[in-house]
Order: sequence, then structure tokens, then C-alpha cells
Amino acid sequence: MTATPGSLIVISGPSGAGKSTVIGKVLEQNPTIYFSVSCTTRRPRPAEKHGVDYYFMEMDEFQSMIDNGSLLEHAVYVGNCYGTPSKPAEEQIEAGNDVLLDIEVQGAEQVRKSRPNAIFIFVMPPNLKDLENRLRSRGTDSEEKIRERLERARGELRYALNYDYLVINDTVERAANEITSILLAERCRMSRRKNLLEEL
Amino acid sequence: MTATPGSLIVISGPSGAGKSTVIGKVLEQNPTIYFSVSCTTRRPRPAEKHGVDYYFMEMDEFQSMIDNGSLLEHAVYVGNCYGTPSKPAEEQIEAGNDVLLDIEVQGAEQVRKSRPNAIFIFVMPPNLKDLENRLRSRGTDSEEKIRERLERARGELRYALNYDYLVINDTVERAANEITSILLAERCRMSRRKNLLEEL
Repeated sequence: MTATPGSLIVISGPSGAGKSTVIGKVLEQNPTIYFSVSCTTRRPRPAEKHGVDYYFMEMDEFQSMIDNGSLLEHAVYVGNCYGTPSKPAEEQIEAGNDVLLDIEVQGAEQVRKSRPNAIFIFVMPPNLKDLENRLRSRGTDSEEKIRERLERARGELRYALNYDYLVINDTVERAANEITSILLAERCRMSRRKNLLEEL
Repeated sequence: MTATPGSLIVISGPSGAGKSTVIGKVLEQNPTIYFSVSCTTRRPRPAEKHGVDYYFMEMDEFQSMIDNGSLLEHAVYVGNCYGTPSKPAEEQIEAGNDVLLDIEVQGAEQVRKSRPNAIFIFVMPPNLKDLENRLRSRGTDSEEKIRERLERARGELRYALNYDYLVINDTVERAANEITSILLAERCRMSRRKNLLEEL
């Protein structure tokens, strides 16, 4: 079998939509997927680990990654910078593995321009009230930050229409199962399997 | 939740690729899918039932269905006519159910013109030797018919590139699982779920 490059998969969705839990489940179901670890200037939350959840860094280090062209995309979100290191993602794709990015809508817009073949999935909570409850129960943000995130979530919905797929996170299992199906279906695309046909 | 029309799903693939078994499994996994029963002028094989596997009919009846515009597509294959009745398929799609057609490549080309939003899946055996073995082990066709079907299969491969997805039937479970994933992924498409976003 000839090696086919992997796909770049972009997942976005409002903060508090339960994306991280769903993505954790998807990675469990798809052990060959490479999850891209983002860089950020925000402070770690309790239980977050450097190099696992994020590469935590100061603003000057982040700025030099932008200047060196080492970021596939970057965006400012609620007063902090986030970015995707290009190199590991590109290496994995070349090796035939799918690469999953959990990024904000602005970053996704940048990826859409530079990588039109990427697969774009938007994850939504079943309703906005639910989103508010999730943000509060997390207990990590001030009331002001929660208001800011909710306002932001409403704005993000306008970008959702640019995505290829919409997944509603009513239960983690259902949402993860839908994303896993999307990834498998994308692997069955004729454009990705043409080589199998040629072998016959 | 607002009712969204179902999708039209077209599955093709060489005779003997094991399509029927795979489709049986897919229908088992997706009980809401409506399987379109085709009309044909060919004689029933042992165990085939009228109204379940096909609507078996004489040539004059088939011709009048063409003349009445009652067929979504029709094609001649190895000396027999096959066609898809339009009405039940259209009713099910309107009711929000996915409709699955198991049709030949020529018929699929007709559907592609009239229904550009349909989903096209091509099912292949892992190799052509395997296809020959399956045709022989079925024991229903003469040597001449087998040659004819193999020749035909090679011709059909040229049409495969026009399909959206390629599924290799190495095991029934794997192939059925891939098709089920494709159907679920297609239901997650933003174009089909826009109404959920609007509700938010």
C-alpha cells in the first residue's frame, strides 16, 4: 500500500462546550491520531501540564515563534495568545497520520486559507444556557471572564457556518462517536484512496 | 427539531464484490435507512423474493415504467434491465429518512445528473482474483456469464473515480462499519445541520 498523507483536522467551538473531554475520547478511540499541542501565553489551570495540554510560554518567546514563521496559525483569545507549532503537524501528516488541532475560530480561518483541504469540525453545546452552566461549574474563571466567554461564544457561532461538520455535544459518547465517524469517512474519500484503485 | 430531508445514497461496485452482504449489515446497523427495491427483468435467483430483493417483471411492464417517468434511473446490465422506482425514494427523503440505492455505474451517472447532492459510494473487492473466486463460488452463473461479469468489472473501475467514497470489502464488518461511518458523517454536515445552529 502506497503511503497517503494524513489529514489536518481542525476542531473549534465555544469554550465550555466540552471540547476537551470529547477530544480526549476521540483520541482514545483513534490512537494513531496526533494531537497538536498549542503554545499559549495564558497561565496553566490546575492539573494542566506543560507539553501535554499546552506549551506555556512568555509573550517574548511567543512573539519570536511568530517572527520565525514557526506557527501554522495564531490568535488572541480573552487576553492571551494561542498558536499551533507547524513542524510537528507537518511531519505527522507526511508520515500518514491524521493531525488534530483544537483551535479558535480566528486561527481556523487562517488554516482554511493556507490548508484548504483540512477538515473543519465545529463542536457546540446543545444550548447556550448549558454552556453558561458548564463555564460556572468549572470554577476557574471570574464572573467577568465568564460574561466575556459567553459574549465571545455568541460571536463564534457566526463562524460556524464556514465549518464542514457540526457536532452537538449533548453526551460525550455521542459527540466522540460522531467525530470518529467523520474521521473514518474522510479516510474513505476517493481522493484519499485513489491509489488503492490504481493498484487494482 | 426542524425536519431535515434525508440523503440519497448510491452504492455501486462490481457484481461479486459482496455488496449485498455488506448492505444487509449496514441496514441492520441503521434501521431508519430505507433500502430502495429495484425493478428488474432478470429471473429471480434461488432465495430471492419479489418485493424484497427486486420487483421482478417482464420487459413490457418495465418499458411502461420508463415511459411513465416512474424510474429515477435505469440501465441494462448483462442482458437484463434494472431500474429504481422514484416515488418511494422521494417520499422517504421528504420524511427525513436516508434512502440507499444499490445500482450499476450507468444508473449512478444518471442519478449524479439529476441529484447532484446524492452521496456516491463505490464498493470494491480487495483484488480482482478475489472477485473471480466470489463469482464462481456463487455457482449461479455460466462460465460465459462469469467472463462477461469480470470484463464488465474492469470497465466499471473507470467510473469509480467519479464516486465520493471508496470502500474495500476485505471483511464484511469493516466495510459495513466504513459505510455506517460515512452515513453518520454525512448527517453531521453543516449543510444538513444548519437549522440546529439557527435554533441556538
